[in-house]
Amino acid sequence: MSMVSVVMGSKSDWPTVKEACAIFDQFDIPYEKKVISAHRMPNEMFAFSQNAVAEGIKVIIACAGGAAHLPGMIAANTPLPVIGIPGQTKALGGMDSLLSIVQMPAGIPVATTAIGKAGAQNAALLALQILGITDKNIQQKIIEYRHQMHDQAVESGDHLD
Amino acid sequence: MSMVSVVMGSKSDWPTVKEACAIFDQFDIPYEKKVISAHRMPNEMFAFSQNAVAEGIKVIIACAGGAAHLPGMIAANTPLPVIGIPGQTKALGGMDSLLSIVQMPAGIPVATTAIGKAGAQNAALLALQILGITDKNIQQKIIEYRHQMHDQAVESGDHLD
Amino acid sequence: MSMVSVVMGSKSDWPTVKEACAIFDQFDIPYEKKVISAHRMPNEMFAFSQNAVAEGIKVIIACAGGAAHLPGMIAANTPLPVIGIPGQTKALGGMDSLLSIVQMPAGIPVATTAIGKAGAQNAALLALQILGITDKNIQQKIIEYRHQMHDQAVESGDHLD
Amino acid sequence: MSMVSVVMGSKSDWPTVKEACAIFDQFDIPYEKKVISAHRMPNEMFAFSQNAVAEGIKVIIACAGGAAHLPGMIAANTPLPVIGIPGQTKALGGMDSLLSIVQMPAGIPVATTAIGKAGAQNAALLALQILGITDKNIQQKIIEYRHQMHDQAVESGDHLD
Amino acid sequence: MSMVSVVMGSKSDWPTVKEACAIFDQFDIPYEKKVISAHRMPNEMFAFSQNAVAEGIKVIIACAGGAAHLPGMIAANTPLPVIGIPGQTKALGGMDSLLSIVQMPAGIPVATTAIGKAGAQNAALLALQILGITDKNIQQKIIEYRHQMHDQAVESGDHLD
Amino acid sequence: MSMVSVVMGSKSDWPTVKEACAIFDQFDIPYEKKVISAHRMPNEMFAFSQNAVAEGIKVIIACAGGAAHLPGMIAANTPLPVIGIPGQTKALGGMDSLLSIVQMPAGIPVATTAIGKAGAQNAALLALQILGITDKNIQQKIIEYRHQMHDQAVESGDHLD
Amino acid sequence: MSMVSVVMGSKSDWPTVKEACAIFDQFDIPYEKKVISAHRMPNEMFAFSQNAVAEGIKVIIACAGGAAHLPGMIAANTPLPVIGIPGQTKALGGMDSLLSIVQMPAGIPVATTAIGKAGAQNAALLALQILGITDKNIQQKIIEYRHQMHDQAVESGDHLD
Amino acid sequence: MSMVSVVMGSKSDWPTVKEACAIFDQFDIPYEKKVISAHRMPNEMFAFSQNAVAEGIKVIIACAGGAAHLPGMIAANTPLPVIGIPGQTKALGGMDSLLSIVQMPAGIPVATTAIGKAGAQNAALLALQILGITDKNIQQKIIEYRHQMHDQAVESGDHLD
Repeated sequence: MSMVSVVMGSKSDWPTVKEACAIFDQFDIPYEKKVISAHRMPNEMFAFSQNAVAEGIKVIIACAGGAAHLPGMIAANTPLPVIGIPGQTKALGGMDSLLSIVQMPAGIPVATTAIGKAGAQNAALLALQILGITDKNIQQKIIEYRHQMHDQAVESGDHLD
Repeated sequence: MSMVSVVMGSKSDWPTVKEACAIFDQFDIPYEKKVISAHRMPNEMFAFSQNAVAEGIKVIIACAGGAAHLPGMIAANTPLPVIGIPGQTKALGGMDSLLSIVQMPAGIPVATTAIGKAGAQNAALLALQILGITDKNIQQKIIEYRHQMHDQAVESGDHLD
Repeated sequence: MSMVSVVMGSKSDWPTVKEACAIFDQFDIPYEKKVISAHRMPNEMFAFSQNAVAEGIKVIIACAGGAAHLPGMIAANTPLPVIGIPGQTKALGGMDSLLSIVQMPAGIPVATTAIGKAGAQNAALLALQILGITDKNIQQKIIEYRHQMHDQAVESGDHLD
Repeated sequence: MSMVSVVMGSKSDWPTVKEACAIFDQFDIPYEKKVISAHRMPNEMFAFSQNAVAEGIKVIIACAGGAAHLPGMIAANTPLPVIGIPGQTKALGGMDSLLSIVQMPAGIPVATTAIGKAGAQNAALLALQILGITDKNIQQKIIEYRHQMHDQAVESGDHLD
Repeated sequence: MSMVSVVMGSKSDWPTVKEACAIFDQFDIPYEKKVISAHRMPNEMFAFSQNAVAEGIKVIIACAGGAAHLPGMIAANTPLPVIGIPGQTKALGGMDSLLSIVQMPAGIPVATTAIGKAGAQNAALLALQILGITDKNIQQKIIEYRHQMHDQAVESGDHLD
Repeated sequence: MSMVSVVMGSKSDWPTVKEACAIFDQFDIPYEKKVISAHRMPNEMFAFSQNAVAEGIKVIIACAGGAAHLPGMIAANTPLPVIGIPGQTKALGGMDSLLSIVQMPAGIPVATTAIGKAGAQNAALLALQILGITDKNIQQKIIEYRHQMHDQAVESGDHLD
Repeated sequence: MSMVSVVMGSKSDWPTVKEACAIFDQFDIPYEKKVISAHRMPNEMFAFSQNAVAEGIKVIIACAGGAAHLPGMIAANTPLPVIGIPGQTKALGGMDSLLSIVQMPAGIPVATTAIGKAGAQNAALLALQILGITDKNIQQKIIEYRHQMHDQAVESGDHLD
Repeated sequence: MSMVSVVMGSKSDWPTVKEACAIFDQFDIPYEKKVISAHRMPNEMFAFSQNAVAEGIKVIIACAGGAAHLPGMIAANTPLPVIGIPGQTKALGGMDSLLSIVQMPAGIPVATTAIGKAGAQNAALLALQILGITDKNIQQKIIEYRHQMHDQAVESGDHLD
């Protein structure tokens, strides 16, 4: 059973979103991935959001670009925490996606990460940190992951030429 | 029976939205006005959008601020034209509202007007121009309204001091 | 006789604008397409705008970039609804086009869509939705078009790898 | 023992942050609130972050404005989920705070909410939604809170004048 | 006979524009001032622009706010130099006005000055500098005006407390 | 003797600036072109500005990018009209150049054109329009140039495919 | 003899700049303060910059707003380090000042601080940190100043109500 | 012993940062270069900052991108002057880096230079100008470096074609 659901507004978001999935693969966390368009599949979006708790999902990650309504609309229909990844966009770089996701009105939060691929990786790590609050095994893996990042960063400094 | 439905995401949008309603009052066009929050009233928002054609509504106007999802989500659920008014916001002036409304992905348009009260007035006038395509009476009133604007603009120039 | 007139400020807008025309072709809607520059062809722009009702045009779509005055100036000269497409621009991404089109003062609305090609497609779809208010055949086609978009979105989710 | 720690970079953030605390009071969730400046109290910031797990904290909320480093620096020093609230700022409205918090590099996420007071309320609600994953009592309260928001939104629409 | 024509898109621009007029009064330059709205008075705008040379006007100054089309549309209809003053705006500070005026496409320049009152003063001074190319009396007055500015700036430094 | 002086802050601006020079070549207007860096050649910049009137220069065009001080600093040192071209920049598109040039304080105007090559062409055309106030031959050429632009724009519309 | 020279482009910058002066007063550092306008007092600006080394000045602080050329132009004329304070502006918040100061081309740096009063305080502290490299007495005072800031920040956290 | 320490938040900043190192090589100034990530190596970052004075470092240069906390966090932990280089970023051009570095709150300055490679060169030159206050040999080299820049700029103007 999936613990995390990773959804995207369009298949064109997949190159971004798969950065999140790679993290879950690495951490061996069961997850599902889906295209659910707020605008083209509103009924599925509603059904998905309203069923997520019953499906055993713990955290939802949603990526969308431009007038990015998917994370906020899912959030409006589930009491689960929703993490939003703003997609990078051609015309405005992703500022449109970012503001459409982060500037939610009081009442319905979306946990927003950075624009694009770094944001996708961080969305997965944030989900893991959330799960790690009560699953010390996951929390321990986060700590180890950070040790690796640390060591790689240290090591990378030896190769400036 | 209302021809136009004017909805807002929060009662705090009413000072903006009533500028649109004043135009409909002036043109003697039957309309309804409602608070429908995409985030706090998603079921009502869906029901409203999906029933609008059957209710005899011709055009929908929706105002929202910040991560303004209301116009786009209504648009996703009705084949009627939806006009979006970006609310002015304290932190970012309304740039967040504007981008959340106008930057809709291909497939689901929202006819976006200016940020704030001027945008609200223009949303009403745009609805009237749309109705005026087939209702020459309304179109004629638009033309007269413009004559008045013209005359007021001309007249205002006599009083620069 | 054309129901829609699609105009652009420069031939360089054509790659954007043809996305709109492709929609009209697909929906079998008679339309005309023209280069009309607000700045280089102001007389033609005025004549075009002021004759559009008499020519039987129902909706005008105008695309321009940078200090994009074409949509607003056409709107000032016709009671028909005018849809504005902000062209993407090299220096500022199209923020200049967007603000030049959407921030119209009270009195003369321009129904603004997204920057660039998605905006062009949506301009055409918005025109069709407007025509569909009274032409149930067109409205039905919009509904079918959305079913197709829906199905393609659903289907695309099966091919994330 | 506090479940949530709410920290702010400066006492001047308190009018914003207390919106979050009011939510925790309403939900009867034990929390602590502190001024911890990343720049003026770096040692306390490190100690706080590195001890938070041991102190039994589950979620950290951090608010800061301008070059807002507090949320990200806490996040770098704890495996707990960190929620960042961008403070509104005089010169740039809070765009500086937002980008300083949300644009975290891959590896260390900060769950960012909206600029200012709405963001503070949402930070608290997000923390509750996170805690609610495993504490069904809290999740239930979130659902009830949303019912109240819903009813208030519906009711507010009866008083447009 | 007026040498300079100072026009504004709306009487609401007058508090800005009168800063320009005050300069012309001070320099004893004959000028006319008018409200000419590109959107509400397009015919007058065209007539004005196309007659300006014949009227003996040498330089045109135009102020407008938001989707500010007036300076560019006048420029498109006269070979005279047109100076554009971007009006300050409530929602976006005047960034909309600035981009709508300055980002003219190749072929039709608008000499753009700063947003708001400083821009209005500078529009007048720029007009005078233009007239001063061939009228050495005006050029001499500009030089004297600068001497006064210089002396005031120097003097102001004695009163920092 | 040169009527116009075209200066640039760096040789890297030449690809932009030569668009202006090409216009002067086409109009057969004597001009000079120079690299004068406000920051690396301040003495030459001062000398150039202060001698320009005596050298018989009528209009100065200055292009610079980033923190673009050249146009404003020249303007501060000559009573001649100075036209500023904001160079396009890699990081910020040219918004930095634009604001550094256009937002001059009251007292010292810079006639600012669009960012990049279109702005360079327009700077030259603006200079010609300024010279054309008193030189009807140049004004006539501007009118003819516009006729050609007009005809090309009209003609271009026949080739949309 | 002054160790630091604090200059401003206009007396209107004084409310900002005096925040810097208050720091120097507190640290008992001899400084001078002056209005030197790059645009209205260019000769004084050049003379000041070129004489600063000989006058025994060690660090220059310059504040200006809008198209803020003062810090960069001083920097171009002295080998001393120049610290730039971007003034807050009405229309654009100070984004214009910031970009005009910070985006200096390669060769002539300006050490830029934050927009407005916080930037002014930091400009003074930065100057002191620079002087403190070789004057351990000043460096020690910086350390003590930070201890006080630290203690005040800690103490302020006891009074959240 | 190194006089300057040049640090970067990630090895991906090296192509930018090496522009600074090239300047130090050219000026024959001993420096060290390191990868120190504020987020992945916080302990090293603290240790580095707190030991810098004792290590004999005079000036620190730090480059980071996105939510760039490195320069400010180092500055918070040392009384030495810290120069911050905002890295250029894919989504937002570097506006995120710039605001995260320059908008420091009162108390802890970061001397910010331009986004990207020009900023890196200027960071090195600024460090040299700071060292040159008391080391007249370095100041003299700065003056010579500027003479060369001057001569190259002058010379480049001879080759516009």
